[in-house]
Amino acid sequence: MNIFVVGLGLIGGSLAIDIKSNYKNSIIFGIDNNTNHLQEALELGVIDHKATLKDIQEKSNAVIIIAIPVDASLNLIPTLLDTISDDTLVFDVGSTKRSICEVIKNHPKRRNFLATHPIAGTEFSGPNAAQKDLFRNKTNIICEVEKTAFKLQEKALGIFTSLGMRIRYMDADSHDKHIAYVSHLSHISSFMLGKTVINEEKNERDIFDMAGSGFASTVRLAKSSPAMWTPIFQQNKKNVIETLKEYINNLEHFKTLLEQDDYSAIYAEMKNTNHIKQILNGIKETELIKK
Amino acid sequence: MNIFVVGLGLIGGSLAIDIKSNYKNSIIFGIDNNTNHLQEALELGVIDHKATLKDIQEKSNAVIIIAIPVDASLNLIPTLLDTISDDTLVFDVGSTKRSICEVIKNHPKRRNFLATHPIAGTEFSGPNAAQKDLFRNKTNIICEVEKTAFKLQEKALGIFTSLGMRIRYMDADSHDKHIAYVSHLSHISSFMLGKTVINEEKNERDIFDMAGSGFASTVRLAKSSPAMWTPIFQQNKKNVIETLKEYINNLEHFKTLLEQDDYSAIYAEMKNTNHIKQILNGIKETELIKK
Repeated sequence: MNIFVVGLGLIGGSLAIDIKSNYKNSIIFGIDNNTNHLQEALELGVIDHKATLKDIQEKSNAVIIIAIPVDASLNLIPTLLDTISDDTLVFDVGSTKRSICEVIKNHPKRRNFLATHPIAGTEFSGPNAAQKDLFRNKTNIICEVEKTAFKLQEKALGIFTSLGMRIRYMDADSHDKHIAYVSHLSHISSFMLGKTVINEEKNERDIFDMAGSGFASTVRLAKSSPAMWTPIFQQNKKNVIETLKEYINNLEHFKTLLEQDDYSAIYAEMKNTNHIKQILNGIKETELIKK
Repeated sequence: MNIFVVGLGLIGGSLAIDIKSNYKNSIIFGIDNNTNHLQEALELGVIDHKATLKDIQEKSNAVIIIAIPVDASLNLIPTLLDTISDDTLVFDVGSTKRSICEVIKNHPKRRNFLATHPIAGTEFSGPNAAQKDLFRNKTNIICEVEKTAFKLQEKALGIFTSLGMRIRYMDADSHDKHIAYVSHLSHISSFMLGKTVINEEKNERDIFDMAGSGFASTVRLAKSSPAMWTPIFQQNKKNVIETLKEYINNLEHFKTLLEQDDYSAIYAEMKNTNHIKQILNGIKETELIKK
C-alpha cells in the first residue's frame, strides 16, 4: 500500500509510524513544505521516502493523508483531488470539518475524500513530536461518511481500526459546534491564562517558583502552534465566539458572586461543576472498555 | 518527636506519611472532625494514633500541622496557640497567608507559629489521596519567618528540607498576590470552563466521546474540593477579583480580534504566549537541579 503523508507534524508523523507498524508492506512517502521537517522525518524513520505532490499522480490505489493547517488544506485538497487516480483515498485530519466539506462538496472526485478528525494530540509539534500508538483508544470523528465511495470508506475504517481508534459519525456542523466547546475553547482559555500571568509577572522567577502542577496543567495548551490554531479559530469563528461569550459570562458571574461576598453561591458553582469528575471518568472508562 | 496533624486530607496526610518515613522515632497523631477520615487515615497507616485537640496540651516539644480549610484555620489557630507549651511549633499549610498572619499578629504565642504554603497537591482530597514524596522538589513559601522563634524556624526547616522541599521567603501580601495568578485563577478558569461545557452539552455522551487529553488537562482542577476553595477565594478576594478582571479582559480582546477577523493579531497573541514554554521548562529545570 502506498501511503502519502502530507504534513509531517505530530499527527501526520504519528499516523505514519502506526500505519507502517500495522501494514508491513506499506511504503510511506512524506511530503512537507518544510525541508528540515522532511529530512528529520526521514532520519527518524517516520517515513520511508521523501516525495512531492507530483509523485502522487503516478501511483494508483494510494492513500493520501492531509495533516497540514486547515487553511492550507482548503487550498490543497481540491487541486489534489483533480490529479488523483479513481481508486485513491484522500483523508484529512483537521480540527474543523465544515469548511473543507463545503469547499469540495461539488468536486467531481468528492467520493475519493473522507473528512476525519482524530481527537488525539499533545501540545508539541513537528516530526520529532510524532509518537507510536498516539491514536489507540482515541475517538475519530468522521463527517459526511455517505459522500465517500463505499470501498474507500472501508479502506479508511480498516486503517483507523488497526490503529485502535473508535469511530463516531457526525455531520460537519455538529462536529464544529461540539469541538468548539471541548477543544477550541480549552486552547483559548489556556492561551489567555498564560498571557494574563506573563503580563503580570514580569519577574519570571516568581512565576516558576510559585507555580505548581495545577498551573502547568491549565496552561499546557498555551504551548500549541499558532500556525495550526489561527486558521482553526478562523474557520470555526462563529462557534468559537459563542463558546467564548458563554465562558466570559460564567467568569463574570463568578466575579460578581465574589464581589457580593456570596460564598454559598460560589460553593454551589464549584460543587455543581465537580460533576465533571464523572464525565472525565467516563472518558477513561470508555477507553478501558475499548482496550 | 510528637507530630499532630490536624486535617487528614491530601496535604496533611501526605505530610504525615513523609515525616513518618524521615523521622523513624516520630509518633504521628491524627486529628480530624470527620471521623470516617480519621479511621481511614489510621487504617491506611497514614497516622499512628487518633487524637483530639485536647491531647495536644499534654505534650511538650510537639509539632502541630494545621492542614484544614483556611477559614477553619483562622478560628482554630489562635485558640490552639493559647494552649500549647512554649517549645511547641505550629505551622499551617494554607493557600492564603495574609489573613492568618493578620489574625495572630498580636498573639502572645506568635513566635510558636510559622506560616507556610507548600505548593504541592493534586485535584483529589481526603486521606486516600495522600501520597509519599508529594513534596519532593516542590516549593514551600514561608511568610514572616522573622516572627517565628529561631529554634522553631530551625525545626520546621529541618522537616521541610528532609521532605525535599525548596524554601522561598516572602511577605504575606506578596504571596497572596502572586498565588492568585499562578494558582487561584487557574482553579476558577478550570471550574468555569467545566461549567460552560456541562451547561452546553446536556448530552454527556457527546462530551466524553469528543473530549481529548487537552480538555481533560484544562478542566482537571474543576474536580477540586469546594469546601477547601471557597474560603481561599474569600480570603484572597481582592487579588482574585483583580486577576479575574485581567483574564476576562484578555478573553474579551481575543474575542474582539476574532470578530474583526484580525488573524495576524490572533497569531501574535498565541506566539507571544508560547513563551510560557520556557517558563514551564524553567519549573522542570529547577526541579531537576534540586534533585
